[in-house]
Amino acid sequence: MTLWAGRLTETDAKVRLFCDSFPFDRRLYAADIAGSIAYAKALARTGILSFEERQAIVRGLEQVLAEFKLGAFVVSPGDEDIHTAVERRLTELLGEELAGKLHTGRSRNDQVATDLRLWLLGELPGIADRIRDLQGALVEAAEKHLGVLMPGYTHLRQAQPILLSHWLMSYFWRLSRDRERLEGLKERLSVLPLGAGALAGNPWGIDREYLARELGFSRCSENSLDAVSDRDYVAEFLFFSALLGVHLSQLAEDLILFSAPEFGFLELSEAYVTGSSLMPQKANPDPLELIRGRAGRLIGNLCGFLSVLKGLPSGYNKDLQEDKEPLFFAVDTLKLALPVLSGVVRTLKVNRNRSEGGLREEALATELADYLVEKGIPFRAAHRAVGKAVRRALELGVGLRSLPLEEYRAAHPAFGEDVYRVLDFRQAVERRNSPGGTAAARVREQIEKAKELLRKEEEDGEVS
Amino acid sequence: MTLWAGRLTETDAKVRLFCDSFPFDRRLYAADIAGSIAYAKALARTGILSFEERQAIVRGLEQVLAEFKLGAFVVSPGDEDIHTAVERRLTELLGEELAGKLHTGRSRNDQVATDLRLWLLGELPGIADRIRDLQGALVEAAEKHLGVLMPGYTHLRQAQPILLSHWLMSYFWRLSRDRERLEGLKERLSVLPLGAGALAGNPWGIDREYLARELGFSRCSENSLDAVSDRDYVAEFLFFSALLGVHLSQLAEDLILFSAPEFGFLELSEAYVTGSSLMPQKANPDPLELIRGRAGRLIGNLCGFLSVLKGLPSGYNKDLQEDKEPLFFAVDTLKLALPVLSGVVRTLKVNRNRSEGGLREEALATELADYLVEKGIPFRAAHRAVGKAVRRALELGVGLRSLPLEEYRAAHPAFGEDVYRVLDFRQAVERRNSPGGTAAARVREQIEKAKELLRKEEEDGEVS
Amino acid sequence: MTLWAGRLTETDAKVRLFCDSFPFDRRLYAADIAGSIAYAKALARTGILSFEERQAIVRGLEQVLAEFKLGAFVVSPGDEDIHTAVERRLTELLGEELAGKLHTGRSRNDQVATDLRLWLLGELPGIADRIRDLQGALVEAAEKHLGVLMPGYTHLRQAQPILLSHWLMSYFWRLSRDRERLEGLKERLSVLPLGAGALAGNPWGIDREYLARELGFSRCSENSLDAVSDRDYVAEFLFFSALLGVHLSQLAEDLILFSAPEFGFLELSEAYVTGSSLMPQKANPDPLELIRGRAGRLIGNLCGFLSVLKGLPSGYNKDLQEDKEPLFFAVDTLKLALPVLSGVVRTLKVNRNRSEGGLREEALATELADYLVEKGIPFRAAHRAVGKAVRRALELGVGLRSLPLEEYRAAHPAFGEDVYRVLDFRQAVERRNSPGGTAAARVREQIEKAKELLRKEEEDGEVS
Amino acid sequence: MTLWAGRLTETDAKVRLFCDSFPFDRRLYAADIAGSIAYAKALARTGILSFEERQAIVRGLEQVLAEFKLGAFVVSPGDEDIHTAVERRLTELLGEELAGKLHTGRSRNDQVATDLRLWLLGELPGIADRIRDLQGALVEAAEKHLGVLMPGYTHLRQAQPILLSHWLMSYFWRLSRDRERLEGLKERLSVLPLGAGALAGNPWGIDREYLARELGFSRCSENSLDAVSDRDYVAEFLFFSALLGVHLSQLAEDLILFSAPEFGFLELSEAYVTGSSLMPQKANPDPLELIRGRAGRLIGNLCGFLSVLKGLPSGYNKDLQEDKEPLFFAVDTLKLALPVLSGVVRTLKVNRNRSEGGLREEALATELADYLVEKGIPFRAAHRAVGKAVRRALELGVGLRSLPLEEYRAAHPAFGEDVYRVLDFRQAVERRNSPGGTAAARVREQIEKAKELLRKEEEDGEVS
Repeated sequence: MTLWAGRLTETDAKVRLFCDSFPFDRRLYAADIAGSIAYAKALARTGILSFEERQAIVRGLEQVLAEFKLGAFVVSPGDEDIHTAVERRLTELLGEELAGKLHTGRSRNDQVATDLRLWLLGELPGIADRIRDLQGALVEAAEKHLGVLMPGYTHLRQAQPILLSHWLMSYFWRLSRDRERLEGLKERLSVLPLGAGALAGNPWGIDREYLARELGFSRCSENSLDAVSDRDYVAEFLFFSALLGVHLSQLAEDLILFSAPEFGFLELSEAYVTGSSLMPQKANPDPLELIRGRAGRLIGNLCGFLSVLKGLPSGYNKDLQEDKEPLFFAVDTLKLALPVLSGVVRTLKVNRNRSEGGLREEALATELADYLVEKGIPFRAAHRAVGKAVRRALELGVGLRSLPLEEYRAAHPAFGEDVYRVLDFRQAVERRNSPGGTAAARVREQIEKAKELLRKEEEDGEVS
Repeated sequence: MTLWAGRLTETDAKVRLFCDSFPFDRRLYAADIAGSIAYAKALARTGILSFEERQAIVRGLEQVLAEFKLGAFVVSPGDEDIHTAVERRLTELLGEELAGKLHTGRSRNDQVATDLRLWLLGELPGIADRIRDLQGALVEAAEKHLGVLMPGYTHLRQAQPILLSHWLMSYFWRLSRDRERLEGLKERLSVLPLGAGALAGNPWGIDREYLARELGFSRCSENSLDAVSDRDYVAEFLFFSALLGVHLSQLAEDLILFSAPEFGFLELSEAYVTGSSLMPQKANPDPLELIRGRAGRLIGNLCGFLSVLKGLPSGYNKDLQEDKEPLFFAVDTLKLALPVLSGVVRTLKVNRNRSEGGLREEALATELADYLVEKGIPFRAAHRAVGKAVRRALELGVGLRSLPLEEYRAAHPAFGEDVYRVLDFRQAVERRNSPGGTAAARVREQIEKAKELLRKEEEDGEVS
Repeated sequence: MTLWAGRLTETDAKVRLFCDSFPFDRRLYAADIAGSIAYAKALARTGILSFEERQAIVRGLEQVLAEFKLGAFVVSPGDEDIHTAVERRLTELLGEELAGKLHTGRSRNDQVATDLRLWLLGELPGIADRIRDLQGALVEAAEKHLGVLMPGYTHLRQAQPILLSHWLMSYFWRLSRDRERLEGLKERLSVLPLGAGALAGNPWGIDREYLARELGFSRCSENSLDAVSDRDYVAEFLFFSALLGVHLSQLAEDLILFSAPEFGFLELSEAYVTGSSLMPQKANPDPLELIRGRAGRLIGNLCGFLSVLKGLPSGYNKDLQEDKEPLFFAVDTLKLALPVLSGVVRTLKVNRNRSEGGLREEALATELADYLVEKGIPFRAAHRAVGKAVRRALELGVGLRSLPLEEYRAAHPAFGEDVYRVLDFRQAVERRNSPGGTAAARVREQIEKAKELLRKEEEDGEVS
Repeated sequence: MTLWAGRLTETDAKVRLFCDSFPFDRRLYAADIAGSIAYAKALARTGILSFEERQAIVRGLEQVLAEFKLGAFVVSPGDEDIHTAVERRLTELLGEELAGKLHTGRSRNDQVATDLRLWLLGELPGIADRIRDLQGALVEAAEKHLGVLMPGYTHLRQAQPILLSHWLMSYFWRLSRDRERLEGLKERLSVLPLGAGALAGNPWGIDREYLARELGFSRCSENSLDAVSDRDYVAEFLFFSALLGVHLSQLAEDLILFSAPEFGFLELSEAYVTGSSLMPQKANPDPLELIRGRAGRLIGNLCGFLSVLKGLPSGYNKDLQEDKEPLFFAVDTLKLALPVLSGVVRTLKVNRNRSEGGLREEALATELADYLVEKGIPFRAAHRAVGKAVRRALELGVGLRSLPLEEYRAAHPAFGEDVYRVLDFRQAVERRNSPGGTAAARVREQIEKAKELLRKEEEDGEVS
């Protein structure tokens, strides 16, 4: 029997199949029951429930919770969503005379919004921890391999030599922004909708501040109509996850490339590669590829949900039920993908021979231009002169270190014997010692800052 | 034990959790087994399998199929995907000496592409039928209510009167284009990848034309490298489903609006509305709202998958595993949503009093302009003159039929006593008798064409 | 002549046509020149430029700026982007001997990132102001019409009566969250990339803290490799704009619906509607529809850009050039759309007769259930009983106020003569007096809070 | 003065700025005028225009067309869209008495739909040609380099050796599917909406078949309400362009990778790379990166437009104006990007030393498994045995050709002296001679089929 059996005849079976959300929203059970317990207490404070009724309802709800936790909850055909299922079971346990009071002044509209926020609030620490763990893995690796050179790329062409640790740390900072965004959205998430009723508010003098405290929300929503239809927190989380997914995809791309034999700077642990059903030699970076691919779906997830929201009229509309599956997908994906990447980073082998041996002499061309600048040549002219020298070296099929001095001089008369001294990869790295640059001291600075940040976060326990 | 146990040590457990596709690709079992049976037969034709081996393998595969169908298939922890699961079970049944021959020259790359195409080919008729059924429902309703007037809207403002059947039929033609797109993609879907191996082709002289015939494909892929990474058919189906979803969302929007009491032209059957947990009076068009919302997710689904494909390098990449869940989501959504809409349309009540009574006299303004045109006034001047008359009627707070003749004459001297004769809703409808217009004869024409189309489709059984 | 004429031969003409960004990035000229002036000063502090050289370069750049501002800048065929164009012109003015020094240690990679951030920082106040202006318009309207009732909707069906001001204020709070998000992203935007060079940092001892101060950034980027490829701020702004766009689309949808004659609660000023080329009576809410539609494109904009970023390898890649057009589109759209909506809200006429007269008695069904609850009936039973009464009223074709007492009693014996007293729209509104509810006092509270917020923002001048 | 000056007061200036489409829809001028000329002729056939009037209007329109073509068209502040602009100018030329008759029975709703379809129909041949040109470039390159080996990749790890021409041809077939999709959408595009009026049809007995013939459409729309709001052809073209963009992005990705020095199989012509402002050595594949990035925006474009359409109610809504910019963006992008890629392919240098020298011996592991299969070992066992051998070779740091026979025998006793004979790259290629395989004869077959296809298309001139 549906909740509205008085008013309407039975719903068509295929409508039920299409509309019921219990198959996926059942995972909200703990949040739903916590919300109901708090609401029962609040109802008792208004006198709608007596103390004994309150106690009985709380005990009943705790039993339903236990049944869910133990896998002992028996689904009934009428359980269209988690709220209905819990209420139905509570009614079985307590009788309608008692259980039927719980929904006084409450609507599934404010209830589901409360459940979803509560559930997501509960997931944030786990996600924050996993980001922090990946950040930690990056810092450890950066610290461990400090000193190893590698080619820095732009346009996937060697640009200038950098420290491998500098490359690793570049991902630390991206994740750091993701952490900031997570903090930001948490504030907007931690707003209690309960007490908004269907859309117009609660008529029973319910104490919403009390409810917020009981459930761990920071504050109450300001407008009941907004409260029941606001899904900004879902959209914002989906954006957070899409952009974090993009960052992970970029790290995955780098790892796939740099561990390909053609680059060979890195080696992935065998625990993070998989084989082929046909080709016996294969060791494929499957998890990394999947992380890259998953980022695409996280983007689609966000964009699809925004499209759901677009142009909706005021008040709760059933379209909003489409918030859950995308949200669950995003949370599940992050919780699985982040540890995989942490594991990859923690088990990464650096092949210093390849990463340093793979440096190409052209990557020192800027050093030559800077050399001319130090001789007083304006940079633009120096750049052009070195361009000629590079071209000449290509024509002769030699590297910049082997290009004869007369060729350098033909490119620009200011070149002198000392030109060969600047053609040094490590020196090129060390020269870039502006704050944030790749010089070893600067990278060490980054690492220290990063460790300090992680330490502080762990202490503060923000989000988590 | 993984397929590549010789080469690699065990994969990390969380990698398995993240990468394994069996939880969702198990539904491909019938396609996978059909593909393997055909492949076993083809291997026998090359001599790699003896006739007895072929028979044993086919029987073994049929048993695995039966186990899946009966729900008796027991999953093993190593079953990372449907291909591995089937091969593992076959090995248990037949021993590796025999079962181990089946994968000769085949890769999961060509195997999964074959499975997915085969599965989708099998789903097309069911989708085509459901579209046709909705089209049929629209035609029936259009035929039944032929003659009922309603306001035609642009910008959600009454524009001109139309036949309600004309409105209904407008959705028939949208769906008709969806059917055409389905036909088009079917051609590109019905291309066999099997025999492409991992990427380079099959070295055992396998007869691909035979395989195509056995499995019901129209032709073989032309290039093995393309064959294993081509997911155009997925993208194309996702687009088809997104645009069909958009059409359904538009019909849903119209139905939600026109059945709202403020419009009241239509009434939804109680079997297709649901109630509220708080407000006893509610009869909400939930399924229609969900169809509207679901369109948003179908869009995100498409866009996410295109984003997965973007910038992938040649050959199979694991990112492509992200093709399945979006595809399954799209197919499932269409199979559930289409019948719901058919049901809504079939059980729709038309409230003629409201749909005709709700017509506003301003919707006849174009008749007035046309009246002046017939008196020889250029349309642009006639339009301006009628604009003035409409404004005057608004100022006086009267409808166009009650606006005094002197007011009409003040707007344009060509207005005469006969002006009131053109202020007739049905006549306005009947005047629009160009092909495709809303005049009753033209709408009947549409209905006949539509019925002819449906009849022909059923006979031809294209797609289905 | 290109910047790299020494190294490479001329680029193909169609490549230039495809790749050149000057047609759209020229609007960054002021930011580009400001960045160059700051950089010239910083170079002078390191001794690379003499004081005289610095002065000459700054003067030269100021002249180029003036030329842009006056529309006197003459484009040259080689001007592929704004940076090249400015450098080319500066070289014409000062000669290469001097102008050629400006780019020392700088790359277009850190330059363009600086330009874009600087430009966007400059746009934020204008956007914040426009949001605040729309918020102000909503508050004014809410204050002006306080007391007017309207139907509150869920599922586009009348749910419960609310105050029209409550509905208006619901949009205030949505925009308030948008403002918070804008503050949050501003922090991450205000980070200086200049000094990151091409990817590895600056080798000339440039003082980045000085640069940050000169240009008004809050802090310096921590990692040069991250700095040149980070486009999180673009993605975050595009998300902000897409979600704000969604909010505007929802307000637009409500305004379109509620001003449709079938609802008729609101009337749009003629300044915000447009007519038809054919139908003289039309007054279409074009700007509102366009705002609704534009939200769709803002969503696509976001999703497209995230897709651009997905899977990019480390360092600057040319793909990142695709950041500008989406960003410009988002900024331009918001700057045009927000004032249009403010204008619509400020000129809105409320048709109290229609908004109050349109209330349907079923919208009081919850009052009946609450009435029974007060008589001690558990809510669920009360809900069912009222459902029956509603159904009976429908069958009899009467409103709830006209349903005879015996019918009420048939639904539930606890109904008494006093039942008709609760069937009052205003009383229903006033009962919902929990914080955030629609009772007049609560809405007045909201309005006061909102005014306080706006006042504080104006004083603090955050963002702006 | 607006078209609706009689009815409404002036529109707000910022509304005009936001809503006017002339800045971007002016490029439809030729289609708009062609449509008007045809409509004038059709009006003359009904008697609404006399022969002289028809002639005068046609001449007037031809003059307006000439003014546009010569850049002599002077915009007036009231020109909100191309239709208004043309009508305004025609009125200036002919007077309203005459020009004012042209819009009789026509609405901008059917007019703009006609314009956009006509314009797009006119663009298709140019796009088809450019696809064909790129296909031609691929076939030429495949023919030219037939015989060159390269590593075939899966998961960006060497899988099996293939012919470089096989890789090139894999893109031919992708484009071939794009061509098919273009044909398919052309059919649905070539449907005339003119005569649908605002939404209800044309009341003047206009001959729509005549209009279709005059304008080159294949058939007339079946339902006027559908006709004015149908934008399926836009969505379908945007999907076509997004998927084509994805294909181009994949080709670009391969070209970027394989021309990176770390791979080095290919060399890009200097005409298709650009340099760095800072690093003199750089030769960046900018155009290819931009093509890759642009694919992301084409995806966003599609998804944004679908989101615009989602949930729109019946009839024309102003949201539909958002169709033009995405469509223009897609057409412009394809017209610029395709020739760039053709140029890249046509000027590609193949570095055979690197592409063949870069082959790694592991890529022959499947040959070893196949060797065992030929000795009667079931494939799965063979696979495992070879996996062990590969692992052993890795441990010993030797290639498969240098792995001692005893090691092979340790992996599987069936290995014999002849094992080394199968370790041959070309032989591995030649063995894969199933249809669509990489064996030279099969690739030559592909090339011949492809050339035949191109030849046939050119003759048929379908689309183009």
